[in-house]
Amino acid sequence: MMQSAKSNRAISSYARAAASIKSDFVLSDYLKERCRLIESALADALPEHTGSSAARLFEAMRYSLFAGGKRIRPVLALASCEAVGGRMERALGLGCALEMIHTYSMIHDDLPCMDDDDLRRGKPTNHKIYGDAMATLAGDALLTDAFKVLARSCDGVPPALMLEVIAELAEAAGSDGMVGGQVIDILSEGEATDTAKLEYLHSKKTGALFLAAVRGGARLGGATKPQLEKLSDYGRALGLAFQVTDDILDVEASTEQMGKRTHKDESRGKATYPALMGLEQSHEFARSLVARAHSALTSLGERAEPLRRIASYVVERNL
Amino acid sequence: MMQSAKSNRAISSYARAAASIKSDFVLSDYLKERCRLIESALADALPEHTGSSAARLFEAMRYSLFAGGKRIRPVLALASCEAVGGRMERALGLGCALEMIHTYSMIHDDLPCMDDDDLRRGKPTNHKIYGDAMATLAGDALLTDAFKVLARSCDGVPPALMLEVIAELAEAAGSDGMVGGQVIDILSEGEATDTAKLEYLHSKKTGALFLAAVRGGARLGGATKPQLEKLSDYGRALGLAFQVTDDILDVEASTEQMGKRTHKDESRGKATYPALMGLEQSHEFARSLVARAHSALTSLGERAEPLRRIASYVVERNL
Repeated sequence: MMQSAKSNRAISSYARAAASIKSDFVLSDYLKERCRLIESALADALPEHTGSSAARLFEAMRYSLFAGGKRIRPVLALASCEAVGGRMERALGLGCALEMIHTYSMIHDDLPCMDDDDLRRGKPTNHKIYGDAMATLAGDALLTDAFKVLARSCDGVPPALMLEVIAELAEAAGSDGMVGGQVIDILSEGEATDTAKLEYLHSKKTGALFLAAVRGGARLGGATKPQLEKLSDYGRALGLAFQVTDDILDVEASTEQMGKRTHKDESRGKATYPALMGLEQSHEFARSLVARAHSALTSLGERAEPLRRIASYVVERNL
Repeated sequence: MMQSAKSNRAISSYARAAASIKSDFVLSDYLKERCRLIESALADALPEHTGSSAARLFEAMRYSLFAGGKRIRPVLALASCEAVGGRMERALGLGCALEMIHTYSMIHDDLPCMDDDDLRRGKPTNHKIYGDAMATLAGDALLTDAFKVLARSCDGVPPALMLEVIAELAEAAGSDGMVGGQVIDILSEGEATDTAKLEYLHSKKTGALFLAAVRGGARLGGATKPQLEKLSDYGRALGLAFQVTDDILDVEASTEQMGKRTHKDESRGKATYPALMGLEQSHEFARSLVARAHSALTSLGERAEPLRRIASYVVERNL
């Protein structure tokens, strides 16, 4: 009797939560709460090492890891896990790994031998504080440690599944993914391009990690093959929408708003969507990508509501 | 009858092989054959990408990966796997990952913002050929791809075991291992030190990856806990012996012999064993470490003979 009343209460509370998600869902609260959760997991993954002889390394790693990122990739991993009915805790290690990899890529991108940027998220870049050698090593360590954190986060996840998620994340971040995209970007600076080439570049440079976040989260949540395909469509559309919006913001926003140098694409002869198709067309393209992302989620029902809202947010954000 | 004759033949052939390993074993032939095997696996792991728009990246990665390294870490992984009765093929993915990680660390170490070296293995360093940006990215990609190769090499290996090997390798290469050691090395340049501090530095900077090679190979080969402990002792002694010999060679050898700049430790005010204890004492220390490595292998019998010979070779080498 007791048991039954209890589980009835639990079921009805779950049903209420599921039913209310659409009407009561406030994205900003949701993102804030998820950010807190992810930052607490990141703090566990990379604690302070004040007594260690390599303390300066950990300080440099933490400087960039806790510089106020939006944590969009981890948020996507957790939301994708839940969109297929999984407990989000199963994707928390993946979320940390994604953010550590994203952070390393920004530290290395900002180096003098790369983009040579002084400002990131309104603060001096890593090498401006710690020097080029330490920034290089802090990036190397964040990338390496990401795989340690992920490989040790398999609580409740079948080990064979975790191995696939690790391999897919490494593929997305490595020579065939993010790093490959960065190389194509550097090599094609100042060259004539078209939207097909630009889309290919971004599918690697930024898209691959977004896709790995969505697919990895979904796999850890126990996605079926059709669910994984739908979410992959969503991830691809979302990743590109994010990049198109980034290009638009580089033209429209000020350095103060963005917390990093803007208008730099044009000055470097980098191909961008606004340069190729104009600003109005670029906005239109971003909106059509969000529609594509939404339509990929149709069969996933209410549980995918956070993913829908995130897609809209990605093109409506102003930073 | 047939079956029994066949398995008798197999057993007697195995017994012959085991018995003959000590007397007939020629280390140079063994190392040459293992090198070939490892390089063939590396070529499969990182094929040429002539048609790709990131072809230059793969060229840069392959330039350093196939620059004629001794492949000592992969050789150790395979030999440790066999020392506990495992098929060496099970450790081949780990061997590739170790060599890719070792190669990335050399590319980044040679960068102008780090050691600023022009020569490595008798050839121009990566950034001298490809530029600093591409060298940074080639290192990043080798490190990332290493985990892809390892996570996908689990043929016949229980997935849970492979996860532990991945985590241990990442730990050995990351902030608590190789990268941490590199930071301590940089920060302690020109500072007073003692042998205890120097041993701690090297246990991280070079020792951790040697230990991960030996322990990872042994685990993949199905090591028991006592076997793993013995092999860990071996790996620790061997890693330090390798470093002490490196320090000695930096003093004794010429740039022509080593294929890289020598006498550079002293000019940078880096603490070394010869500087701390003198050349003769350093040789003695290296020999005592080999004796410690040999003694750790006693209970492992004939199958550990290659590991014994490798330990002797590591301090007797002249490059």
